[in-house]
Amino acid sequence: MTSPTSVEHVSPAPGGAPADGSWTDATVLAADHGLVFHSWSAQGRLPDFVVAGASGCRVWNHAGRTWLDFSSQLVNTNLGHQHPAVVAAIQEQAGLLATIAPATANATRAAAASKILAHAPAGFTKVFFTNGGADANENAIRMARVHTGRDKVVSAYRSYHGNTAAAVVATGDWRRVPNEYARGHVHAFGPYLYRSEFWATTQGEESARALEHLERVVQSEGAASIAAILLETVPGTAGVLVPPPGYLRGVRQIADRYGIVLILDEVMAGFGRTGSWFAFEDHDVVPDLVTFAKGVNSGYVPAGGVLICDAIARTFDDQVFPGGLTYSGHPLAMAAIVATITAMEDERVVENAARIGAEVIGPALRELAAANPLVGEVRGTGVFWAIELVADRGTREPVPPAVMARVRALCLERGLLPFTADNRVHVVPPCVITAQEAHEGLAILRSVLDDVAAQAPAM
Amino acid sequence: MTSPTSVEHVSPAPGGAPADGSWTDATVLAADHGLVFHSWSAQGRLPDFVVAGASGCRVWNHAGRTWLDFSSQLVNTNLGHQHPAVVAAIQEQAGLLATIAPATANATRAAAASKILAHAPAGFTKVFFTNGGADANENAIRMARVHTGRDKVVSAYRSYHGNTAAAVVATGDWRRVPNEYARGHVHAFGPYLYRSEFWATTQGEESARALEHLERVVQSEGAASIAAILLETVPGTAGVLVPPPGYLRGVRQIADRYGIVLILDEVMAGFGRTGSWFAFEDHDVVPDLVTFAKGVNSGYVPAGGVLICDAIARTFDDQVFPGGLTYSGHPLAMAAIVATITAMEDERVVENAARIGAEVIGPALRELAAANPLVGEVRGTGVFWAIELVADRGTREPVPPAVMARVRALCLERGLLPFTADNRVHVVPPCVITAQEAHEGLAILRSVLDDVAAQAPAM
Ligand SMILES: Cc1ncc(COP(=O)(O)O)c(C=O)c1O
Ligand SMILES: Cc1ncc(COP(=O)(O)O)c(C=O)c1O
Repeated sequence: MTSPTSVEHVSPAPGGAPADGSWTDATVLAADHGLVFHSWSAQGRLPDFVVAGASGCRVWNHAGRTWLDFSSQLVNTNLGHQHPAVVAAIQEQAGLLATIAPATANATRAAAASKILAHAPAGFTKVFFTNGGADANENAIRMARVHTGRDKVVSAYRSYHGNTAAAVVATGDWRRVPNEYARGHVHAFGPYLYRSEFWATTQGEESARALEHLERVVQSEGAASIAAILLETVPGTAGVLVPPPGYLRGVRQIADRYGIVLILDEVMAGFGRTGSWFAFEDHDVVPDLVTFAKGVNSGYVPAGGVLICDAIARTFDDQVFPGGLTYSGHPLAMAAIVATITAMEDERVVENAARIGAEVIGPALRELAAANPLVGEVRGTGVFWAIELVADRGTREPVPPAVMARVRALCLERGLLPFTADNRVHVVPPCVITAQEAHEGLAILRSVLDDVAAQAPAM
Repeated sequence: MTSPTSVEHVSPAPGGAPADGSWTDATVLAADHGLVFHSWSAQGRLPDFVVAGASGCRVWNHAGRTWLDFSSQLVNTNLGHQHPAVVAAIQEQAGLLATIAPATANATRAAAASKILAHAPAGFTKVFFTNGGADANENAIRMARVHTGRDKVVSAYRSYHGNTAAAVVATGDWRRVPNEYARGHVHAFGPYLYRSEFWATTQGEESARALEHLERVVQSEGAASIAAILLETVPGTAGVLVPPPGYLRGVRQIADRYGIVLILDEVMAGFGRTGSWFAFEDHDVVPDLVTFAKGVNSGYVPAGGVLICDAIARTFDDQVFPGGLTYSGHPLAMAAIVATITAMEDERVVENAARIGAEVIGPALRELAAANPLVGEVRGTGVFWAIELVADRGTREPVPPAVMARVRALCLERGLLPFTADNRVHVVPPCVITAQEAHEGLAILRSVLDDVAAQAPAM
């Protein structure tokens, strides 16, 4: 990993630069503010953070200032930034064949499907490719509906599944509410002992009650009307809510009992994030459909998809699958998938994520929780952790937005790019992070939280 | 443009090849059939066409056989295959910064927005980027709904807008029917004189009656409940239905009369296809939102987006825009956009499309229509044409699927990759096609249609 030695080295592609050939952070910000419309934002509060280049776990701006990336961007660069083998594969495929229609057979697409299936449990036989996580979920829901001939989808209130019409209504969080234009969606509460919806006091109780609640929702909606239960294996944006032991096995049993397709959304949790290839492996459960994106190629080229079990794949042997998209199985994205999975295998990246979680992040966060009164709970696995910041450990009242803004600003000031959501800091570095880098970032985070805790009464 | 000189030259990226390092057409087909789930298909009828590499207007398989591409794949490679400047820009950006979170400011993203806006009419101020056409339409619909505070979207029965839940229900064609899970969508008939829904006999009558019909639908649905009218400027997959003079101006007036947002879907029609940068320029009309994808970077990297007029952009200055996606403004896609638009400007690609349409394709197809009894109508503009094949010129009854299968098979046999839909052949080569290549392809098409016409009674 190297930081840039000059601004020129990280200037943008030709054609993108101002007349004099070089951008500055100020000119990028001005151009962005003027021309680019941003996701999930009021456009008046636009980005203040410029990235000119990146490598491994570091990003830098045009002035050459670097940050340690504890966000993996949107928790997608599992392999870190600019992995040379993936960059080379993209460059080679770009020179060979950038794009081809989805109805055409292409070697790189077949190779990508093969690479993914090699890490799936027995029983998965085909892969449908999309451009990202939202359309992966859209198509998994479609498969479940056609396969079962049923209508409804049950998902969790604490969840995010993407921004297209069905994916966003499957979503549980606030982003669903202004977007309720798809029908057939029902939500249930999932296990989250720290803020239990079930008056539970132990993980065992939380798991059992969450299952009882889910089954009652299924029954009350009319089990025979339910096509799919769609869950993030580990709800991510909602707070890295690692399910308690037995919960997902219980969900699998409910799905089986009522003939419901179980879709696990591994868009964020899959491909190494939890320290396993798929997060469901940690829970001894096998879904019928798996949706993926992000980590499958670290987001170097937009890609997502659905891993399909044989029974559902066979439904469409003779029946037309009523879904599709121009860039399904896009060669450039496929080349990035092949190279990413190969690099993850060769460099034992998944094992690294597991070890860093167990040996570095977990212990450090538990120490932090013990020492810092702002920390209500820490939880996670692999390189997938959340720190809940609370104004009061007794009531568990979340810290107000101003505290989160201060945490974020101080992190950036001290060289750490954090991932914050609601009252939480998610510790989600690339899966390739070294122990030394993890310690470095955790030390910054600790110093920031200590300083904020010391000032907290004043806020 | 060069054809491959050896199979090795076009073998896929490393990691994707079989153990011995080289794919054959047979091994690609076998791997594809076993592992890849395809769009809009019964999976038993899988691709029989393998593409190993491509350049300009030609594609080839592993055996080194080449075809002239009269499909532009899914009508997206407007710049042809493997344009060296775009390939180089992708390779350079891949080496610099493949991906970055959408909330971060990035020079290449600002440059791409600037390049697009430079070709938009006055009044458009911002660009929201997506991964493709479907999510572009999803987000345009979202903007219209929030901006107007209204609910319904009116679109055309003869249309395609993408496969995600709102886009597919906005779609008019058969693909909507198994997917009707989004609410708030209403459909109207558009102008199509050859198969008029309005008992019209002239283009003037068709245009006037289509407008009257649209306004009656708007009024009957309750104009004050309608957020948007969403139309393909030139309905593409539905049959290259170039609107008659005045129709789109009339739609604009209806939208204005009732305070409705006009969204024009230029995913297929935009970026040179019709011989203009935007197809609406040909119709003297300016919409409020424009959706794009495909031609914006010829599909070399998945990308789409929404061009936003100032009034709608300003709605979200203080109000949160409730939509977004991980790969919005993906640097690799943005670099391909900048390079594609630059190449189109430098090489006068849009002008070429206009000239080839006016001087080569149009005249040849009109001649074909005069000579061949299978041809019911030809219509189009630029490099965007359709040939309607009919069993009977009087009744205009479409030819049956077996005839279309024969047309397609003969084209492939004679070295032409055609685009077929229903009873039509769409003549949609890259915008960079030369007169010589266009003549070559048109001659093949003519020979095929002549032979099929000669055999037709036997079928
Ligand atoms: C669990 C999960 N599913 C789906 C998505 C949507 O993915 P995309 O933004 O690529 O559409 C996300 C994105 O954060 C996610 O975290
Ligand atoms: C007019 C139009 N809109 C939208 C789409 C959907 O685009 P995508 O397949 O990239 O989602 C298409 C695709 O063919 C199209 O032709």
